[in-house]
Amino acid sequence: MLNAEIKSDVLKELVEIVGTIVDEVKINMDEDGLSLKAVDPAHVAMVDLTLKSDGFESYEANETELGLNLNKIEQFLKLSGPSDIIKIVHEEEENRLTMNVRNITQKMPLLDTAGMTDPNVPSLDLPINLRIKGEHLLNGVKASENISDHISITVTTDGFEIFSEEDENEVEMSLGEDELEELNANEEVRSLFALDYFSDMVKCVSKDTILDIEMGADYPIKIQFDFADDNGNVRYLLAPRIEST
Amino acid sequence: MLNAEIKSDVLKELVEIVGTIVDEVKINMDEDGLSLKAVDPAHVAMVDLTLKSDGFESYEANETELGLNLNKIEQFLKLSGPSDIIKIVHEEEENRLTMNVRNITQKMPLLDTAGMTDPNVPSLDLPINLRIKGEHLLNGVKASENISDHISITVTTDGFEIFSEEDENEVEMSLGEDELEELNANEEVRSLFALDYFSDMVKCVSKDTILDIEMGADYPIKIQFDFADDNGNVRYLLAPRIEST
Amino acid sequence: MLNAEIKSDVLKELVEIVGTIVDEVKINMDEDGLSLKAVDPAHVAMVDLTLKSDGFESYEANETELGLNLNKIEQFLKLSGPSDIIKIVHEEEENRLTMNVRNITQKMPLLDTAGMTDPNVPSLDLPINLRIKGEHLLNGVKASENISDHISITVTTDGFEIFSEEDENEVEMSLGEDELEELNANEEVRSLFALDYFSDMVKCVSKDTILDIEMGADYPIKIQFDFADDNGNVRYLLAPRIEST
Repeated sequence: MLNAEIKSDVLKELVEIVGTIVDEVKINMDEDGLSLKAVDPAHVAMVDLTLKSDGFESYEANETELGLNLNKIEQFLKLSGPSDIIKIVHEEEENRLTMNVRNITQKMPLLDTAGMTDPNVPSLDLPINLRIKGEHLLNGVKASENISDHISITVTTDGFEIFSEEDENEVEMSLGEDELEELNANEEVRSLFALDYFSDMVKCVSKDTILDIEMGADYPIKIQFDFADDNGNVRYLLAPRIEST
Repeated sequence: MLNAEIKSDVLKELVEIVGTIVDEVKINMDEDGLSLKAVDPAHVAMVDLTLKSDGFESYEANETELGLNLNKIEQFLKLSGPSDIIKIVHEEEENRLTMNVRNITQKMPLLDTAGMTDPNVPSLDLPINLRIKGEHLLNGVKASENISDHISITVTTDGFEIFSEEDENEVEMSLGEDELEELNANEEVRSLFALDYFSDMVKCVSKDTILDIEMGADYPIKIQFDFADDNGNVRYLLAPRIEST
Repeated sequence: MLNAEIKSDVLKELVEIVGTIVDEVKINMDEDGLSLKAVDPAHVAMVDLTLKSDGFESYEANETELGLNLNKIEQFLKLSGPSDIIKIVHEEEENRLTMNVRNITQKMPLLDTAGMTDPNVPSLDLPINLRIKGEHLLNGVKASENISDHISITVTTDGFEIFSEEDENEVEMSLGEDELEELNANEEVRSLFALDYFSDMVKCVSKDTILDIEMGADYPIKIQFDFADDNGNVRYLLAPRIEST
């Protein structure tokens, strides 16, 4: 059972974030809120997202799984303004989801979740962590897009650097400790990533969002942030690209 | 003879409305104003438009027919701002139209109107009529575009509904009597229409325009509205699509 | 040696103007500022541009030549806002240019200037000159784009006219002496030009910029204007198109 109301912009942000990884997703609902885990088809990026019931305007649910096509929800949300309230009802007998905004009601069949298993989120103990404004990451990503399709991220004991190079062209964004919100690094680590995943993810984060980043040398990068007035949490994991030598 | 001045935004609206039906049109001028009737190449939609001389800034004309290419006029209008005054002169000897805005003058040859006959507007006595804000129709059309390429419109004794479905996905916009400007219906009627014509037409109407709609069950829908400070009138007729059973 | 700072919007304007002619260019630097001359691959249009050291926020240079790819600089400038300061350093040993804005630094290899000779700017003594607002030229060019791919420009003793025609469609923009900033013409001259070059050039000039134009009958047109608070100067030369008779 699900009978909830949510602000359009909160649902939009959720759909955008998860949509960078998959088009179809299984969402787990229970009385406390929703959670989902998804991995992209190439098994390079993973998202682990929760949204507590307080992130909704009203919320009533039993434990259930919903298989959703995110593109259809995104199209529906285009009919709404940011502060419109979206009503969501799970019609169990018809196995479909009903969404409503103002005087418009859309009904969509749910996907079969039988083959949609929750991916295992690897437990990683990463040596470095820092906090950084979304704006900085966005600038670094945009600069790198001019140069190459991969980026390296380096964290030292006193700063953070995004670097990209190809055919003798190079671009670098350097932030000192004072330009970061927090930096805990006892060693220098560096990892290389495919730019497209990174770029899609960073572009759906607002400029003022503070991102928690954990890294190790040639380890996956973990990016965490809150949304929906801290009632929602996103953990994003991106595998490193092994450098050819 | 034609020697007239008209506000750019009035002429733009006229060209947009008629342009949803045809690219080339015969306009009939006389001393009281202009009128035109046009039917689309597939004979599905028809427009019947009049603009009285008071809708012009200045107007002087004898009875004459002008064959116009609407795309050329639309391009010329892009050179003007909404409140610019467009001067229009029919140069009879050269058989061309001269349009002027500020210090720019464009001359275009007129089309041969010999083969352009005025279509017969069918006289329909439709049982239901209602008045509705353009905004509502626009929202219903946008929602339907996500789902299918046709829409059904249902009018009951107490409301108005746009419905669209395909592959188990459905969308519906429902308006109660209090959300309509007026509703005169003694029975329930329902007709199915191709969405593309409907959509093009609705998108060139402003949100605040009040539309007069007349309908019958599986009959053409008639949509009427005024423009140019009520000096212009548009009657739009769209044939129903017969439902396959 | 080059070590300079320049406002992003000044450098953007320079790159846009020269970019209408060539993608790769040789820039000559000395202690007083920069200068460049470029001709398009078809040898139809030429630009001769100077920017004095006062057009920079800070400037230090010895005589040197830099071979630049304008597309790469344009992409870098997209990372900056109009009033951001761009730092530019020529790293002589590595033969590359370093550009910096905020905390982003891009390094790009310089092009070999061996084959890039300065074109000879023909010395022309043109009988007619006038001064005109960029806005007027822009309007004339936009109107002509609806009609044809070439324009004729006529200057008479009391006005200026842009004219374009094709397939019996004509458009004309006429300016009287009072709509020009200045007009010195003892005779009537007329030349025909390819619209695309003209159009690209005019579109990167702001509406309020005053353009100095020199013309002769079937001679190249010379368009001059200042930028960067009059510290920069552009001379643009476009060859006439010979009319087929």
